This record gives sequence, C-alpha cells and structure tokens, in this order.
Amino acid sequence: MATSVTDRLADLETIRRVTDLRARVAAWRQDGLSVGLVPTMGALHEGHFSLVRKSVAAMDRTIVTLFVNPRQFGPNEDFGTYPRTEEADAAALQRQGAQVLFAPNVEEMYPAGAVTTVSVPGIGDILEGSFRPGFFTGVATVVSKLLIQAAPDVAYFGKKDYQQLCVITRMAADLDLPVKIEGCPIIREADGLALSSRNVYLSPDERAKAPMLHQALNDVAAKVRAGGVEAIADAEAAGAEAILKAGFKQVDYVTVRDAANLAPITDVMKPARILTAAWLGRTRLIDNIPLHD
Amino acid sequence: MATSVTDRLADLETIRRVTDLRARVAAWRQDGLSVGLVPTMGALHEGHFSLVRKSVAAMDRTIVTLFVNPRQFGPNEDFGTYPRTEEADAAALQRQGAQVLFAPNVEEMYPAGAVTTVSVPGIGDILEGSFRPGFFTGVATVVSKLLIQAAPDVAYFGKKDYQQLCVITRMAADLDLPVKIEGCPIIREADGLALSSRNVYLSPDERAKAPMLHQALNDVAAKVRAGGVEAIADAEAAGAEAILKAGFKQVDYVTVRDAANLAPITDVMKPARILTAAWLGRTRLIDNIPLHD
Repeated sequence: MATSVTDRLADLETIRRVTDLRARVAAWRQDGLSVGLVPTMGALHEGHFSLVRKSVAAMDRTIVTLFVNPRQFGPNEDFGTYPRTEEADAAALQRQGAQVLFAPNVEEMYPAGAVTTVSVPGIGDILEGSFRPGFFTGVATVVSKLLIQAAPDVAYFGKKDYQQLCVITRMAADLDLPVKIEGCPIIREADGLALSSRNVYLSPDERAKAPMLHQALNDVAAKVRAGGVEAIADAEAAGAEAILKAGFKQVDYVTVRDAANLAPITDVMKPARILTAAWLGRTRLIDNIPLHD
Repeated sequence: MATSVTDRLADLETIRRVTDLRARVAAWRQDGLSVGLVPTMGALHEGHFSLVRKSVAAMDRTIVTLFVNPRQFGPNEDFGTYPRTEEADAAALQRQGAQVLFAPNVEEMYPAGAVTTVSVPGIGDILEGSFRPGFFTGVATVVSKLLIQAAPDVAYFGKKDYQQLCVITRMAADLDLPVKIEGCPIIREADGLALSSRNVYLSPDERAKAPMLHQALNDVAAKVRAGGVEAIADAEAAGAEAILKAGFKQVDYVTVRDAANLAPITDVMKPARILTAAWLGRTRLIDNIPLHD
C-alpha cells in the first residue's frame, strides 16, 4: 500500500502547558539534540514557514509557538479580531517538519497575579514604540518568557518586524539569555507586498494599492543612495507623499535609520534600514528594506 | 604534620566573567550536581553566612555573587560609599564552604548599550519602592540576570529585605525562571538589631539606639494581636512615635501588611508582616517581623 508524504511525517505534538514544554525540551537535551524556536501569533503564512524551514534545516528539533499576546495590543487595536487559525497552522507546521506547536492559553502565560514586565527603553520607545505605547514591553515580556520556557539554542524572527528584531536582540543580550537571535529575510508577494497575517484585512481594492508601500521604500532608497545624507529629509517626505497618493489614509512614518540601533543616520555608507508604517483604510501596514542590498 | 581545618577546605574560585560562570555550572550539571545561589552585595555578615550555610547543606555546589548593583541605588544614595570588602568576604566564604564567588564588574553586568529593565509593578512600587523610586526595578533586573546567568536550582534570600523577597519571588514566577526562591530567617544581634551591611555606618551612640526599631515592631505586633484589625492604625502610629522618641530622625513607614502581597490587611488571622524603615542620623535602617510567630 502506498504511503503519502504526509503519512510518513512524524506527528506534530501540540503542547499547552509550560511544564510539558520543559519536559519535552529536557528529554531532547538528554539526547544531545539542538532546539530551534519560532515564536508566532499564528495565522501562519509563507513568511513564518520560511523561519520554520530555516530552523528545521539547522536544528535537530523545532518548536513553533502560537500565542496571540494580549499585552502587545493597545486598547483600540485588533486583539479581538486578530486571525486565529490554529487547526490550519498545525497542519501546515506538520508539513514543514516542526516537532512541537506550543500553544498556551492566556492564563497559562499570564496566571492571575502576573505583573512583571520586561522593557527595552530607547530602541523600544521610538517608531512603532511611539505609535503603539507599551507594544515593545508586551513583546519583550512575552518573548523573554518564551525563551526562558523553551530554552532554545536559536530563535528565529522575521525582518518584516525589523524594530521588533532589534528590540528582541537587545533584550536577549541584556538579560544574558543563552540563545542566538536570528533575523530572517522578509518574504514578499510577487508584487512586492510583504507577507503579513494582517493582509487578510485588506479589501480587494486595498490589496491592489498595498504594494505601493514597498515601492515607496525602494524610491526612498534610490534617492538616498544617489543623494547621500543631504537627500534623506526630502526622500522621506516624497516617500510619505507617494504613499498617500497611492490611496493610503495616513502615514505614521517613513524614515531612514541606522540598521543596528535605529538612530537617525549621518553616514549613508554604514548599514541603514528604511522603515515605514501607514494606514490603508483600517489596516495598519509596516514594511522595511535595507538602504543597500 | 597536622592540617588545619582551613587547609582541608577546597579553594574558593573567584569568577569575574559570565561565560566562565556558565562553563563552571555546565560542568557541574554534566556531573549531575545541584546548584545553590546566594546573591549579595558583599560586606558579608552572619546574615549572609546563614544563607550560604543553608545552600551548602542542601545543594551540591554553592555560588555566592558579589555585585554592588548601581541600578538599585538612587542618585542621592550610598552607592559610592557602600562597604566593599571582597578579600575578607572571599576568605569567609571559603570557610563557609562555598565553591564559587561570582564577582563581576559593572561593565560585565551592564555592557555598553545595555538598557533592558525588569519591573514588578504594584508590589515593587509601594513601601520601599515609593521611598526609593527605581529600586526594585534595579533589583529585579540584576537578580533576573544573575538567575539566568547561573541557572541555579535554588536561590537564597534573607527576609531582612522582606519586600525584596516578595518582589523577586513574583519576578521569578512571572518570567518562568526554573528556580526555587527560598526566603531565610533574619539574623539579629543579641539586642535585636537586624544584621545589615549598613550597620557599620552607625556611630556608637546610634548603634545603642538602633535596637528600638525591632522593639517597636514587637510592640506593634502585640497590640495588633490583642486588638485586631481595629487596633492597626493606632499601633502603627504608636510604633512610629516610639521610634522617633528613641532618637531616630525620621520614620518612612511602620505598617502591617499581608505577608504575601504586602496589601493592607483586613483579617489578623491570615499571615501578616509588620515592616518599617527609619532614619537613624544619616543611616536608613529597615526591619520587619511576622505578626504571628
């Protein structure tokens, strides 16, 4: 009898409790196995899968976490409506070769009385941090918990959330967490739109306009590469204008920053990143590209 | 040839770098040994030694940390003058049977660029937290780092810093640190003064008055045990008055609190703690006792 590829894959184990996760990892460690972690909020897409495949290729075991973290949503944000597709996520993760889906509920992550926060002042307060107060404290708190719970060798994050990657890298270093934080390339649709779980919010009309965000970043990059530091302010302003002209409702920022600490740059030869956040109807999209390829 | 007790003790190893500490602990773990941690700011006294002995008795290996943590001192506090006696501390720890003294410098604990903080809102904001803004964030940050660096099975803290013990217990639980936090009894002089590294600041005259702090706590406890919840406010006020009458310059607080969350109590039959902080000249002393023995 023929066996399908799916049948031959080991079963993905879904774990809900921290103690069970710890026991699973401890057993792997006893066997000398390396462990990769891919933290997600679910609603998985090819961007997440690229992280999972990276972990599966490099590590003996891969844990994907699925937790829609209430602490990183503001009171007027989309915590309630954020897409939740655990069954489909689990099926896809099994195909990608992950061993464990860690999907705790809110009470498991934040039991009654839990109050402790992890904050990354400075880099966590600017850009996304200024438009979404408390966001990066929520992110740093939940990610520090996940890293302590799972104790992986490597944790994989997408550069789509570039500032988040910077904040988490800083946090892990500052707290001496014995883990390597690996940032992975943004995955885009053919028309340039960065994959995001929030893209499902877009109407067909909005979806058609969305790639202009990436196009605007490319235009800013070209202008700054050509014109140097003096061209930055005009390039940023032109980028914001182009995004509005494309039909976006509001631009939170278009900015050229140092790739490591996200400070304004004074030298275009050093690694830099161009970042943007803008509203397309009721959906807030973010994107970023390197100044130099 | 006779061998003195000291000669027969294994050498205490002083470690300065986090990576060396990790390597030492990893080697112990490979051998299946348990690890106890005693975090201190040095200037060790019998209070600290009681923690070290507890760890030495219960665990295979004991690490004592010595780090005068700048982040837990306010700008007008005694960071610069805090007693530093590492040589004597190391000699004493060897006699007590500790294996490692981890004494990193400030740059090792907080390398350039380190910004991440761990905060425990609520219980970290009241009492000591209100009189010493930022104190418990400094404590929670450094202790979370030490617990992550050393990864002990058990960490020992004195009840002398009772609120600190509550804050650390909360932090360790909230961050899922796989460690048991053990609170240990206060060690007192024969006249009742709680041992403290800051007692060396006291003049002979102040030293003679200092035990009244403990006496005042005992009097508050007796009144509340006799009079119940209704007696608390008067007992606290009388305690503060007695401390001032004894020659203290200022009383920051004398208060009866729930032993677990330090909230005001409504039932004297539940575990409660009576806590005080007061200034004797330029020295700020703290002390606490249980409401019931």
